Formats: sequence, C-alpha cells, structure tokens
Amino acid sequence: MSVYTPVSDAELAAWLDGYSVGKLASCEPIKAGIENTNYFVTTTQGRYVLTLFERLPAEELPFYINLMAHLARHGIPCPAPIADLADQYLRSLNGKPAALVTRLPGRSLERPGVEECAELGALLGRMHLAARSYSAYLENPRGPRWWRFAAREVRPFLKEKEIRLLEDELDFQAQHRFPDLPRGPVHADLFRDNALFENGRISGVIDFYFAGVDCLLYDVAVCANDWCLADPQADRRLDEARTRALLAACHAVRPFGALERAAWPAMLRAAALRFWLSRLYDFHLPRPGMLVHAHDPEHFCDILELRMRLPPAWLD
Amino acid sequence: MSVYTPVSDAELAAWLDGYSVGKLASCEPIKAGIENTNYFVTTTQGRYVLTLFERLPAEELPFYINLMAHLARHGIPCPAPIADLADQYLRSLNGKPAALVTRLPGRSLERPGVEECAELGALLGRMHLAARSYSAYLENPRGPRWWRFAAREVRPFLKEKEIRLLEDELDFQAQHRFPDLPRGPVHADLFRDNALFENGRISGVIDFYFAGVDCLLYDVAVCANDWCLADPQADRRLDEARTRALLAACHAVRPFGALERAAWPAMLRAAALRFWLSRLYDFHLPRPGMLVHAHDPEHFCDILELRMRLPPAWLD
Repeated sequence: MSVYTPVSDAELAAWLDGYSVGKLASCEPIKAGIENTNYFVTTTQGRYVLTLFERLPAEELPFYINLMAHLARHGIPCPAPIADLADQYLRSLNGKPAALVTRLPGRSLERPGVEECAELGALLGRMHLAARSYSAYLENPRGPRWWRFAAREVRPFLKEKEIRLLEDELDFQAQHRFPDLPRGPVHADLFRDNALFENGRISGVIDFYFAGVDCLLYDVAVCANDWCLADPQADRRLDEARTRALLAACHAVRPFGALERAAWPAMLRAAALRFWLSRLYDFHLPRPGMLVHAHDPEHFCDILELRMRLPPAWLD
Repeated sequence: MSVYTPVSDAELAAWLDGYSVGKLASCEPIKAGIENTNYFVTTTQGRYVLTLFERLPAEELPFYINLMAHLARHGIPCPAPIADLADQYLRSLNGKPAALVTRLPGRSLERPGVEECAELGALLGRMHLAARSYSAYLENPRGPRWWRFAAREVRPFLKEKEIRLLEDELDFQAQHRFPDLPRGPVHADLFRDNALFENGRISGVIDFYFAGVDCLLYDVAVCANDWCLADPQADRRLDEARTRALLAACHAVRPFGALERAAWPAMLRAAALRFWLSRLYDFHLPRPGMLVHAHDPEHFCDILELRMRLPPAWLD
C-alpha cells in the first residue's frame, strides 16, 4: 500500500477547514501508485483525491497542477485542482506539499478495443490542442537527458546483450531527434490505468505527474505501446485495427503532418526506451522504503527489440 | 420561450470547433430565463449550457464569468466556464458575446424543507468564504443606485399608496446603510429555481448574472425572502424553522457578527425592495421583444409591507 505519509481523520478534517468543500465525510487510502501518497476523500460537498507529494521536486509541482487546472477549464476530463481559501492549489499537510483534486467517475479498462482506442485518440488530440495555450514550461523530466543518466546508473546491473541493445538505441535516438515536430505539454504516461471509462466514453485522464513538454507524437507512441499491443503478455506487436483507430481519431482532431508520419517508428522506440529504462532503474535501484514492487523491465525490452526489428508502418 | 438569438446546429457545430469539447451531439433551447438566450448543449465529451448575452453590458461579463470560474475551482458547485482554444471564456456567436459552461446535475425544489434550507445556508457560507479571494470588483448592479433609478421610472404607473410605501422605504434604506458589514461578491439572486438538488445535496448554484459586490448578509436575506416563506402564495411571513436552519448553517461556516444580527430586519426589507422594484420595472416597462411575461410585483410588495410591519427577529 502506497501510503508513505499517514493522515488521520482529525488532521484531514482540520486541513479541509482551509477549503470551501464542506465537512469531511470519509477518507480512504489509495493503494495504486508508487510516487505519491493518495487518499480518496469524500466531503459533504463532493468526492476528491488528496495527494501528498513525496518525491517530486517542489519547484516542478506548479507545472503539473496548473496544467491540470488549465486542461480542466478547457473541458478535458482531468482532475481539477481545488484552490484553498488563500487561493492556492498547493498546501502543506503533515510536512508534505499536498493538493486536493476532483475525483472523476469511471474505471480503467484492462483490454480496450477498437472503439476505446479511438476514444483515446480523440482525447489525445483534444488535450494537445487545449494544452497549446498553456504557457508554463517544463522539459519532459523523463526525456533524453534522463535516459542517459538512467542508462549510466543501471549499466552495472545489465547483461552484455542488454548493454548492447541499450547503447545501440541511445545512439539511434541521438541521431533521430525531431526538432521540427509539433511540441507542447504532453501527459507522457497515459497507460490504460490512467484513463477512466464510463458508458464507453473517457470520463477521466489522471496522474499528470510525468507530464512535460515534448513532441505531441511521443504521447501517442506511449499510448500505442500500451493500448494497442496484440497481446500484452504474449505478442507485443501493434494490433493493426486498434493502432489505426488510435491514429485516425487523433488525426481527425489534430491532423498529423508528414514529419510526424516519418518519425513514427523512431517515436515508438523512444517511448519503449523510456519505460524500459525507468523500470530497470526502479528494479535495480529501488528507493529505500519503496512500498510497491517494481514492474518487470523485460516487457519494455521486448517491445523495444520488436520495434527495432519490425518497424511499424504509419497506419491511418 | 426565451430564445432571442437562434443558433442552428451547423452554426453551433462550427463554433464548437474552437473548443476542446468534442463534437456536437445535440442542442436544445432552454425556456426559462428572460435575460439571455440559453441552450443545453451535449457533445461527445459532456453536457454544457451555452449562453448568448443579449442585454448585459459587455464590460461586465468578465466579472460574472470569472467569478463562476473562481468559485468552481474552489469546489463550489456552480457552472464552470469552458475556455476556448485561444484560452478565452467569452467568444462571439451570431453577433452576441457567448459562453459555454458546464451543465450541472439535479433539479430545483419548489418546496424546500428545513434540511434543504440548511444545505443552502452552508453553501452560502462556503461561497462567501471562497469569493473573498476573488479580486475583480463590480458593485451590485441592482443596489441602491439602481433602486433610485427604477423608482423614478415606475413612479408614473403606481397608485398613491404604493408611491408612499416606496418612498418611505427608500428613505429608510438611505438611513440604514451598513458600511461596516462584511462585504464581498454575492450571488444576489439565489431563488429556489437557481439551486439544483441531487440526493438531498445542492448539486448546482446557477445564474450568476445578477452577482456583484454587496453585504454578504444581503445574499442571505434574498434567500430567506424566497426559501423560507411560510406559504409563498398565502403567508409571506418567514417560517421560523426554515429561517433558523438557513441562518444556523450559514453561521456554522462563516460566523455572523453582532452588526449583521442588528442589520437583519433592514436587510430583509432591502432584499424585498430590490425585487419589488425590478418586477414593477419589468411589468410596467417591458422591453420591446421581451418574450416572457413579467412576474407579479405584488408578491414582493406584500413581503416588503410584512417585513416593515412585523420586523423579523434574528433567529439561530
């Protein structure tokens, strides 16, 4: 259970007096997530999620929180931060920076189909358009600079074959940067468990704490590598129908350019590399006190190898 | 039906391309309301209300719209304006300034009971606290200055007894201003039909287009004169149990001071005067093309006379 900082009902009730959300009705720890402490909070006014930030640099928090506020007021179904009586979104609780955000309805899907991948594509398009007018800047914190740092750190734990694969891919990516692709704030971690569905529609996109400015197409590639696998356990090639649905729906909202089509195979590799590296890092260098077991790094190593060996064509 | 400016599906669909709210699914005119043109709009993303502003001065619109945005991000269940792709809340449609806001669930109640009046009181308290950090300023557009204007305009239509009542009350109010009462942005029109309930809770406070800065207690008095009448048709005295519930719940969130208790009888009269005057004005001086019949002014004349004759004590 990922509760690093316990909060008692009495502490929470007193803290909520600094907001206009009514009285505490109930509070329940959330088990998922390894980065922050999260609680479901219900008051006489509504349902919220309370997050205590355990590791994120304090100076980066406004980028994430204000991005959510920006997207929410553009109609994107993402958690809307609640401002306190001093008109601030971030407020200390038990020694940690904390935020209260709206709790969205719906459930994530383990096996999204063609329709749901189209929903996701349209939502990505709308989110990228809405984010264009967001003026704060934070470079994707898990971008190329971080890849090189993580690669150095995990190298001592890798087999020779893995080291070769990693170095080849870092070389390839260094030669395939795309400075002219459309860029902007991206979610950068929109896996299936970060999208909630209700009645066939996306009712929520959550967990913006890996967001940053990067190629918009990178966001699409991260999604494809998770939502469109033929079989997440057995066959990590991209399923053609779902990939086509994702790309076509996104294109219908924000048309892709020729440069983006050309960059697609390399972007899928970049997205695979990023999650292979972070999983290797969490697996070999777990943080002291880390309460959740790291995901298997092999999964993204397989995806990366496959994308190198069988570069997927653009589909739409 | 209050649709002064018709909007076709094709016009609306094209207009919505300037937002991140998906594609138009349906659009339905709203019959209530006499000031603006309103539509229920449903898109692939969600449910909204579209308002075309017919009469409000363009320079006042940002006060109302930004107040709603401010309150919504503080957790007050009010319509949240949706920003367009240029990051603006107001955008021209068919020649009128227009805004898209979230549509809230719930229904208004014709006969609220003690519990619902307590809900309202708590919500007023929370709304007044949340509005404190709102920095824009617009004097209540239906305040004393407007009373004097409206009184001059309707005078030729009144019977002698009504003229005497009106002049007596304007004199009384001129001698009973309360510069030291807590002030701030108030809704100023929170009648029963502007509050939506769902499962016994207020799920929405709507129609902020009479909002302005005034005594917070004035907002409570407007509510009492509508929500707490013993019988809206037959007995316009304040019902003790419901008035007590309204005041106690509001006090529990934002404690009333001694000055406010002392000002209560005069504030109830001010709230009655304001609506008597606006109903007289709309009745005798209907605007050309006004599509809805004016409310009966007698109702608030009765309330005013009663509050003068039987000044209600403070109840809590």
